[in-house]
Amino acid sequence: MINSSDSVGVVNTQFFQFDEPLLLASGQTINAYTLAVETYGSLNADASNAVLICHALNASHHVAGISAENPDDIGWWDNMVGPGKPVDTNHFFVIGINNLGSCFGSTGPASVRVETGTPWGAAFPVVTVEDWVAAQARVADRMGIKRFAAVMGGSLGGMQALSWAITCPERVAHCVVIASTPRLSAQNIGFNEVARRAIITDPEFHGGDYYAHQTVPRHGLSVARMIGHITYLTDDDMAEKFGRTQREPAPDGEFHYGYGVEFEVESYLRYQGEKFSRYFDANTYLLITRALDYFDPARKTGGDLARALSTATADFLLVSFTTDWRFPPARSREIVKALLQNDQTATYAEIDAPHGHDAFLLDDARYHQVVQAYFDRINQSLNREA
Amino acid sequence: MINSSDSVGVVNTQFFQFDEPLLLASGQTINAYTLAVETYGSLNADASNAVLICHALNASHHVAGISAENPDDIGWWDNMVGPGKPVDTNHFFVIGINNLGSCFGSTGPASVRVETGTPWGAAFPVVTVEDWVAAQARVADRMGIKRFAAVMGGSLGGMQALSWAITCPERVAHCVVIASTPRLSAQNIGFNEVARRAIITDPEFHGGDYYAHQTVPRHGLSVARMIGHITYLTDDDMAEKFGRTQREPAPDGEFHYGYGVEFEVESYLRYQGEKFSRYFDANTYLLITRALDYFDPARKTGGDLARALSTATADFLLVSFTTDWRFPPARSREIVKALLQNDQTATYAEIDAPHGHDAFLLDDARYHQVVQAYFDRINQSLNREA
Repeated sequence: MINSSDSVGVVNTQFFQFDEPLLLASGQTINAYTLAVETYGSLNADASNAVLICHALNASHHVAGISAENPDDIGWWDNMVGPGKPVDTNHFFVIGINNLGSCFGSTGPASVRVETGTPWGAAFPVVTVEDWVAAQARVADRMGIKRFAAVMGGSLGGMQALSWAITCPERVAHCVVIASTPRLSAQNIGFNEVARRAIITDPEFHGGDYYAHQTVPRHGLSVARMIGHITYLTDDDMAEKFGRTQREPAPDGEFHYGYGVEFEVESYLRYQGEKFSRYFDANTYLLITRALDYFDPARKTGGDLARALSTATADFLLVSFTTDWRFPPARSREIVKALLQNDQTATYAEIDAPHGHDAFLLDDARYHQVVQAYFDRINQSLNREA
Repeated sequence: MINSSDSVGVVNTQFFQFDEPLLLASGQTINAYTLAVETYGSLNADASNAVLICHALNASHHVAGISAENPDDIGWWDNMVGPGKPVDTNHFFVIGINNLGSCFGSTGPASVRVETGTPWGAAFPVVTVEDWVAAQARVADRMGIKRFAAVMGGSLGGMQALSWAITCPERVAHCVVIASTPRLSAQNIGFNEVARRAIITDPEFHGGDYYAHQTVPRHGLSVARMIGHITYLTDDDMAEKFGRTQREPAPDGEFHYGYGVEFEVESYLRYQGEKFSRYFDANTYLLITRALDYFDPARKTGGDLARALSTATADFLLVSFTTDWRFPPARSREIVKALLQNDQTATYAEIDAPHGHDAFLLDDARYHQVVQAYFDRINQSLNREA
């Protein structure tokens, strides 16, 4: 039984400052950077019970619990991580790290650059999933964690987990990849590119240096978010949620015959877009969508995913959702197939869920049971080793 | 055998001027309007062989042949309409009409308003599919066509054909509805709304009166088109066409690590968006997407589509395409089911085609054979009556 009423409680952000230069995939270097981190549970004596949770596009290090800075801010995966939850903080020491280049406390385009005293803006380098892994590894080093019991993530977070298993095999005992893909399709890249064009062609973008103009390309960012939002849901799901319901019908239930909000779905998307444009950094949106586009571990092995994965020594859990049309089950199956081809150990669950890509964030009993059973097994193996 | 080498040849646009006021669904009135029209083939003595072709979002009255004004401009359904083609102009008198509110010669937001001597702009009323039918009916009246042998269209054009059959049953012998739907879903409306927001929030939109500012909201229109374009294709189709191919790789095949064009799919979408923004009117884009949103003949019958269709006396042909995720086969089947419930006559073909919604414009042998067989039967019935 999952006791979902338990929470990790109030959590403080920790800031890790790194002064050794970080060489990026692009060839550029970041001389110094800060990462915002939260942890839940306790690290055991031999530092063997650490779980790293990697976040997707718009999330952060605030994975679970209530933010000490804002009591209304509940962690984005609070239904997954906590005492008695699938990733049980009574047993595991769980770490959330805000990605380098993001905008929730880690160094990113909106941060002041030490060398200039002004925000990085357009000068902030493009980073890749592999760069994130390298940056996160330093947090593990500082915490004395040589090997994670598990690295786990959904969507873009799943790509990071996969990349950890490939690039630092000796540091990953279990790799949990949820609603993810070994690479974006042309359609995925297409949606990202439209979102980026909406931001970049907004006159308030000022070539990425909008901070100096005391402005924000909020219209572009809002359109970008609206597009993203549609791709996280499904046609059926939206039909169920909104259908063709009118927002505020004219007298006699009539239409207004204009371009204002007419249908509930319009109101919802506009609200989501506007809300997002008030808290998310536009340059970070560009940077993270580009990291998504670039991710393709099989690129170095001539397209051979099995060969790309062959360095990994982790035990894998993969989960996909039937109605996810952004990263459909076929993409997860491709990873499973490559692992099996290498005689690597993989568990795969395809969850029948109606909520599309968003399902990975939702509280679905079958999905959570799969993850809980997997982490129970990890916990048992830790106890045997202890 | 379809002889696709034959064309209707060079065609001139005809302009039909109407001075009787047209009362619109919104309650507003247009006092006078012009419709741009093309015709192919000859109207027979009893005016019984006329076929009206209705166009979708970005098309026009230029259905077939070569435009007299521009020899590079081939009609948008030239593979469907012509001598020896599925809609055979040796037998049928085919009419294309640019919709009221469009931007290819018919009166629309970019037209100069007689009352003011300036472009309509934001003052141009919202029109509906039913308004288009009423406007088109006047063209038929002037041509002396009491009853069409067929009214036909794909996508939004299919909605017009459906509306013709419902609202003017005595004037439609056959109704051909291709890749269409009885109403937009919440997801469909969502994509339209994002496109409209991109246009409306472009500072060059000036509340719809950009003509007075000698400018065009081309960035917003370009983003709108890019979104639309992705929804016309499929994930598989885009994988086949573009995959992850890089446009102009850096030395050693590397990425550029920036936000310029990196992948072929980005280049293609940008090109399509920019091209579209040079020839299409932004207000027309708003107007036509809104007409799509509003279309819902079952709205007046409490959601009962069978009852909404019960006035129709036409014989129906419906065609859908398996990979069309914009208006999937299930939507066409809904229409077929409603017709059968009323004991109305309907032929339905579900074509296995890889090209998504765009398939209705492409030259697919099975698809064209279905349409040709249907029109052959219409032609035979005309000959029997003669």
